[in-house]
Amino acid sequence: MMSTTTTWQAGSGTQIDDATLVRIDKWWRAANYLSVGQIYLLDNPLLREPLTRDHVKPRLLGHWGTTPGLNFLYAHLNRAIAQRSQSTLYVTGPGHGGPGLVASAYLDGTYSETYSDITEDEEGLRRLFRQFSFPGGIPSHVAPETPGSIHEGGELGYALSHAYGAAFDNPDLLVAAVVGDGEAETGPLATSWHSNKFVNPAQDGVVLPILHLNGYKIANPTVLDRIGDDELHALMVGYGHKPFVFEGGYDADEPAIEVHRRFATLLDEVLDEIAAIKARAAQGDLSRPAWPMIVFRTPKGWTGPDTIDGKKTTGSWRAHQVPLANARDTAEHLHVLEEWLQSYGVAELFDATGALDPDIRSLAPAGDLRMSANPHANGGILLRDLRLPNFRDFAVDVPTPGGSMAEAPRVLGEYLTEVIRRNPDNFRIFGPDETASNRLQAVYGVTDKQWNAEFFGPEVDEHLARAGRVMEMLSEHQCQGWLEGYLLTGRHGLFTSYEAFIHIVDSMFNQHAKWLKVTNDIPWRRPIASLNYLLSSHVWRQDHNGFSHQDPGFIDHVVNKKAEVVRVYLPPDANTLLSTYDHCLRSRQYVNVVVAGKQPAPNFLTMDQAVAHCTRGLGIWEWAGSEAQDEEPDVVLAAAGDVPTLEVLAAVDILRRELPQLKVRVVNVVDLMRLQDEREHPHGLSDAEFDTIFTADRPIVFAYHGYPWLIHRLTYRRNGHQNLHVRGYKEEGTTTTPFDMVMLNDLDRFHLVIDVIDHVHWLRASQAGLRQRMVDARLEARQYTREHGEDLPAVRDWVWPDAQDLSSTEQIDATVFTGGDNE
Amino acid sequence: MMSTTTTWQAGSGTQIDDATLVRIDKWWRAANYLSVGQIYLLDNPLLREPLTRDHVKPRLLGHWGTTPGLNFLYAHLNRAIAQRSQSTLYVTGPGHGGPGLVASAYLDGTYSETYSDITEDEEGLRRLFRQFSFPGGIPSHVAPETPGSIHEGGELGYALSHAYGAAFDNPDLLVAAVVGDGEAETGPLATSWHSNKFVNPAQDGVVLPILHLNGYKIANPTVLDRIGDDELHALMVGYGHKPFVFEGGYDADEPAIEVHRRFATLLDEVLDEIAAIKARAAQGDLSRPAWPMIVFRTPKGWTGPDTIDGKKTTGSWRAHQVPLANARDTAEHLHVLEEWLQSYGVAELFDATGALDPDIRSLAPAGDLRMSANPHANGGILLRDLRLPNFRDFAVDVPTPGGSMAEAPRVLGEYLTEVIRRNPDNFRIFGPDETASNRLQAVYGVTDKQWNAEFFGPEVDEHLARAGRVMEMLSEHQCQGWLEGYLLTGRHGLFTSYEAFIHIVDSMFNQHAKWLKVTNDIPWRRPIASLNYLLSSHVWRQDHNGFSHQDPGFIDHVVNKKAEVVRVYLPPDANTLLSTYDHCLRSRQYVNVVVAGKQPAPNFLTMDQAVAHCTRGLGIWEWAGSEAQDEEPDVVLAAAGDVPTLEVLAAVDILRRELPQLKVRVVNVVDLMRLQDEREHPHGLSDAEFDTIFTADRPIVFAYHGYPWLIHRLTYRRNGHQNLHVRGYKEEGTTTTPFDMVMLNDLDRFHLVIDVIDHVHWLRASQAGLRQRMVDARLEARQYTREHGEDLPAVRDWVWPDAQDLSSTEQIDATVFTGGDNE
Repeated sequence: MMSTTTTWQAGSGTQIDDATLVRIDKWWRAANYLSVGQIYLLDNPLLREPLTRDHVKPRLLGHWGTTPGLNFLYAHLNRAIAQRSQSTLYVTGPGHGGPGLVASAYLDGTYSETYSDITEDEEGLRRLFRQFSFPGGIPSHVAPETPGSIHEGGELGYALSHAYGAAFDNPDLLVAAVVGDGEAETGPLATSWHSNKFVNPAQDGVVLPILHLNGYKIANPTVLDRIGDDELHALMVGYGHKPFVFEGGYDADEPAIEVHRRFATLLDEVLDEIAAIKARAAQGDLSRPAWPMIVFRTPKGWTGPDTIDGKKTTGSWRAHQVPLANARDTAEHLHVLEEWLQSYGVAELFDATGALDPDIRSLAPAGDLRMSANPHANGGILLRDLRLPNFRDFAVDVPTPGGSMAEAPRVLGEYLTEVIRRNPDNFRIFGPDETASNRLQAVYGVTDKQWNAEFFGPEVDEHLARAGRVMEMLSEHQCQGWLEGYLLTGRHGLFTSYEAFIHIVDSMFNQHAKWLKVTNDIPWRRPIASLNYLLSSHVWRQDHNGFSHQDPGFIDHVVNKKAEVVRVYLPPDANTLLSTYDHCLRSRQYVNVVVAGKQPAPNFLTMDQAVAHCTRGLGIWEWAGSEAQDEEPDVVLAAAGDVPTLEVLAAVDILRRELPQLKVRVVNVVDLMRLQDEREHPHGLSDAEFDTIFTADRPIVFAYHGYPWLIHRLTYRRNGHQNLHVRGYKEEGTTTTPFDMVMLNDLDRFHLVIDVIDHVHWLRASQAGLRQRMVDARLEARQYTREHGEDLPAVRDWVWPDAQDLSSTEQIDATVFTGGDNE
Repeated sequence: MMSTTTTWQAGSGTQIDDATLVRIDKWWRAANYLSVGQIYLLDNPLLREPLTRDHVKPRLLGHWGTTPGLNFLYAHLNRAIAQRSQSTLYVTGPGHGGPGLVASAYLDGTYSETYSDITEDEEGLRRLFRQFSFPGGIPSHVAPETPGSIHEGGELGYALSHAYGAAFDNPDLLVAAVVGDGEAETGPLATSWHSNKFVNPAQDGVVLPILHLNGYKIANPTVLDRIGDDELHALMVGYGHKPFVFEGGYDADEPAIEVHRRFATLLDEVLDEIAAIKARAAQGDLSRPAWPMIVFRTPKGWTGPDTIDGKKTTGSWRAHQVPLANARDTAEHLHVLEEWLQSYGVAELFDATGALDPDIRSLAPAGDLRMSANPHANGGILLRDLRLPNFRDFAVDVPTPGGSMAEAPRVLGEYLTEVIRRNPDNFRIFGPDETASNRLQAVYGVTDKQWNAEFFGPEVDEHLARAGRVMEMLSEHQCQGWLEGYLLTGRHGLFTSYEAFIHIVDSMFNQHAKWLKVTNDIPWRRPIASLNYLLSSHVWRQDHNGFSHQDPGFIDHVVNKKAEVVRVYLPPDANTLLSTYDHCLRSRQYVNVVVAGKQPAPNFLTMDQAVAHCTRGLGIWEWAGSEAQDEEPDVVLAAAGDVPTLEVLAAVDILRRELPQLKVRVVNVVDLMRLQDEREHPHGLSDAEFDTIFTADRPIVFAYHGYPWLIHRLTYRRNGHQNLHVRGYKEEGTTTTPFDMVMLNDLDRFHLVIDVIDHVHWLRASQAGLRQRMVDARLEARQYTREHGEDLPAVRDWVWPDAQDLSSTEQIDATVFTGGDNE
């Protein structure tokens, strides 16, 4: 999909004729009219009769302020797109301007094609107006329901990240990304300007940022509108852009057509410059240009009432939302509203039936070139399945449980290498400078980190190139936003992060999960690839970093979202991680959270076992337990997570030696949602299944990766819940060694044995001696770390007893693993 | 605390003498030596004997790369502070450089004063080295344990926000804020440069940002190091700064003393310029200057080994962490380490006993002027109690339950007005453009929004001034970071936000809660004021904004943190909100989360009742229930949150009319943590208390503000838990009216009645007719919203029956409330 000769055309160089400018103005007036109509009108959509209070909605909801600017840009882009046949996606950061995008989609015909009951006549207009921000209707923001949108307009800050995500690997796509000057104050937006250092001008599309400088937020001016032209110019240059400044709407004496002429000319200049950059890139010049951006300074609420109740409205924060709050209740406001609506000249725009004047419609490009119909905005249409290798080919050898060791993500990295090789243009890995730290560095055997800032040479710039499948910037917001944009436009990817810091994007996850949930109920939205997290450097191995890096709560955050869109996996070893990730990369419409430690750890399951285990999602590890066939166990020791699995097995090892008469069942959980009730989550076990595995009445000692509460929350309806005792992470971090860390949280092997003694009634009295030895073992281990700075060798080097039988100790020698435990 | 003549002195204008420069160099060498020692050495701290592997720590943890730069700056600031007697706080964004800050605090004597076992001799050095990133020792980052720090160095991005928070209302304080070029890529940091538009040059202190441009992150170059000098300069100018560029350490031929001379001269120039700005401000010029900032371009790992294993290390990302990973295991690395340590000339720095050369020590200023001893860094020392008005004076009149209405935050705003009036220099309100939207606008009667960008005049700039107690920028990160910095330096404040978007700062909350938890265990850290949230525009009233604005999960996030530092309050009406907030503003060392709707809602409790209710934290509302004295109820209807309270009471109203024989107990929960077990949370009820209130065996129908899971999680150990049925928010948002919204979530009055019928056994069979009527009532209400766009008047205008008896309907007339439902 490299550039073809049909795109990135330079303009004709000729003046835009007046007829076109008039058409643009009419389109703009029509869009503004439809926007105001959506916010205010319940009926009388063409103003065929004098406006009465009954024509006005009883509850006035929506946002006017940003809308006319969005409509203006849409109108002008239409003209340019039609002229240049330039596939263009419109990303609207000020997404509160929902009525504008709906209006534009209606004007270019997409809306009626998508929603057949919103017809192109008076009745359709009535429905269009009524449904807006109305019970059972459509949201007031740009939303999944809006044709042409990949960007929900609720939470602000991600417009440019989404835009760049959409542009990566879409060499022929222009993404016109409107940035609100309110949203521009957010952190994520402020850093996302730097995305241009990660663009390859040949292989990627072009993002054209348009800073919509209308000057006001809800109740305040915006920072960028009040720093003066020089600082603003410097800021944009500093961000790596060539700013083109447009100011319009402030001079009442300037005819509308002249305003349009100035903007159309400027837009042509900008697009010609982009075309020239693209032409140079096609000739092989891949260096980073100063990409054009537009400063679009226009009044907030442009074309609305100048003043309301004697207060300046247009051009102020008072135009932010619904400027005429009492249109239904006061005659004066009703009158102002009617005048305002009439000012657009509705009779000139729509014919007697309510159909749009065909001349106005002709401004829009045809078919998929309409921004509201651009297929990239409904990425599922373009989605191609990944060509996946057989993950079994990357299996680690597990001669016997615990009989080999691996850093699980390093093994996954080998698999991803092949994924990258087979999918060179629709799969990327995103991460905040942690891809290697999280042990995926094998991928650098086949690809590089894409980078288009300065290069200082191979001595320091390892795996850095102008094209590559790995995107690294030290901003979780950018990684998430880029990946979302990439997925929403029909591609695949994953985001690897330190577990604790994925909370940085909690709210972005929220919005993406909500988007998926809503699109599941919109038939014309086609499924997209899942958003896959790989959380490594997890809570249990923060020897370098300590308390600030310990937080397993992202899982808790995720499970609050609609069960149909979230999945959480805790693979206990390398082969289960491979099997899990293969599943994730094949899935659609989910957020998959996969937590996997990066430190050397024993492998327990062969690939066949791993596949079976992952398919079940959880299961009894008979090879580990000591229960007899056809007998109920005395106790269930369960684990979810790699470190808990290790400690449970070490505890079982002690129990088998010390209490050979005890019937221990070992359960391992990969798919956390299996614990939940089948009525709560599609992956949930039935109660009968749950009882079969966990028993209904035996003590369950559950070692969990994260905050212990979550296991209770997931299982509180289960029969066995009153017998469930969970060990997990408590907020008790300090500077520790790995085993010291699990001891601090009572998740260690010795404490798990103590838990078993405490909860199996007949052990309590009889095993005081063993209990005491376990307490002593903990004290000794703690004492050793304090003195030597590392874990007791007997603990550190413990291996599952079956693995001890292996003659080849190299297989379980951890020292073969090198590489810094970074950050 | 306005500027005095002793601060903000201009420099002498004379050259810095060579003896001083030599002293600076020695300090720097000593700090670097101590830093390397901490990372690597277990023993032999003065290199009295040849280095052997036994002197090297078995696990090498920590970060070297950023440390020498931090040490360099500390040394130079020492010189300037001593000369100018300038109180200076050192905020280190690259907080991974923990060893550097510990080393500097040791060199200036603070460390030994704080930790008496770390003596100023060889044994003290041994302990200093050993404790670093060692079990039972200190963290590897700048942390609460580090004297002089208010800024944990784990999660990156908040250095400037914290620095500005510290500077507000500290007119005599200089905050030297080092920004790592890695952290500079984060969103929060990228927008925090704009903090300078919110500084009053007379009343606030000065932040001096120092961009530590060492060029590399874990495994990559940094963006800001690779955009060229021109773009970087433009970016800083665009951010409103006057950049001073320093480059040092790249020219091997330049003598160290000349490097120091150049930086000392530049620093004097910068501080003189700041002094000049301060002098102009003292003369009344409060306009925003181009504040100086320093670009500090020096090699990563400066003074470390040039190459290791043939690979460039110093001046590359390879110096990020522990450059000699195998110092204990390979003779070659051990040798390099020894040479590296020797290169600092340890014999010149410490005497035979291990005490620092007094001439080096003399570089540091005295007493509290030492940056590590600056009292602002241990804000509890400076904390003054707020002068609080009697919140009872702001009570709303509640003639009978439900007999008046209020927008609760608006009432709180009146109270805050008086808080502001009485505390003009140590209390601020922070919010992302939502202070008025969240109904606190009364405060503008006594204060303004502080703003120091351009002013466009009173027509549009309401309540905007160069000094004010309200800080509004559209960045939750900034609000949180500023407030944290303000609190950590001993002041008070609150942060008001839309409930859904407070997730934007989930991870910042995490870090602050961890800071509080750790400082609780550090005796020399004095308690600071609590971090108070007011979350309004909550999940149930997003008529304007819909699904994207619906997320009550911050509470779930918060309760994962250590119980001793988190509190969650859900006041059901205006008087309870007042009582709650009075409590929050008096508290210390907590994070208080208060959720309160901003829409007109009935008041239920008189102030006396409210105080009693809030003091108990939860309680039986006897006036609402229908249970007889000395009899157990048939059912408990519980509520937590304002909307749930309303629906529960409306359900009880139906039950009292329809089923007068039913004994209903009404329970209301303000303090959510009361539900928890007393062993889990200090506010937790005992089981006996819980049983008394909720019963051990009667059905409990619990209407909860947030995700229903949380109530199960908090109560799963309670006797009554198997009888508990929770209604709360499900991820099912759509465009709705308020009652439609609660119906969508089954939290409405009709469904609560259905729940009662379904769970009280003897009602199930007998009340099929009532049940059917409730189902019909829901359908009718839903149908009405679809048709009319607003709620059924009978539902919308429902009032508690006792309130209906009041003759004055004005008291419950909601139409007196105006003001847009903004955003």
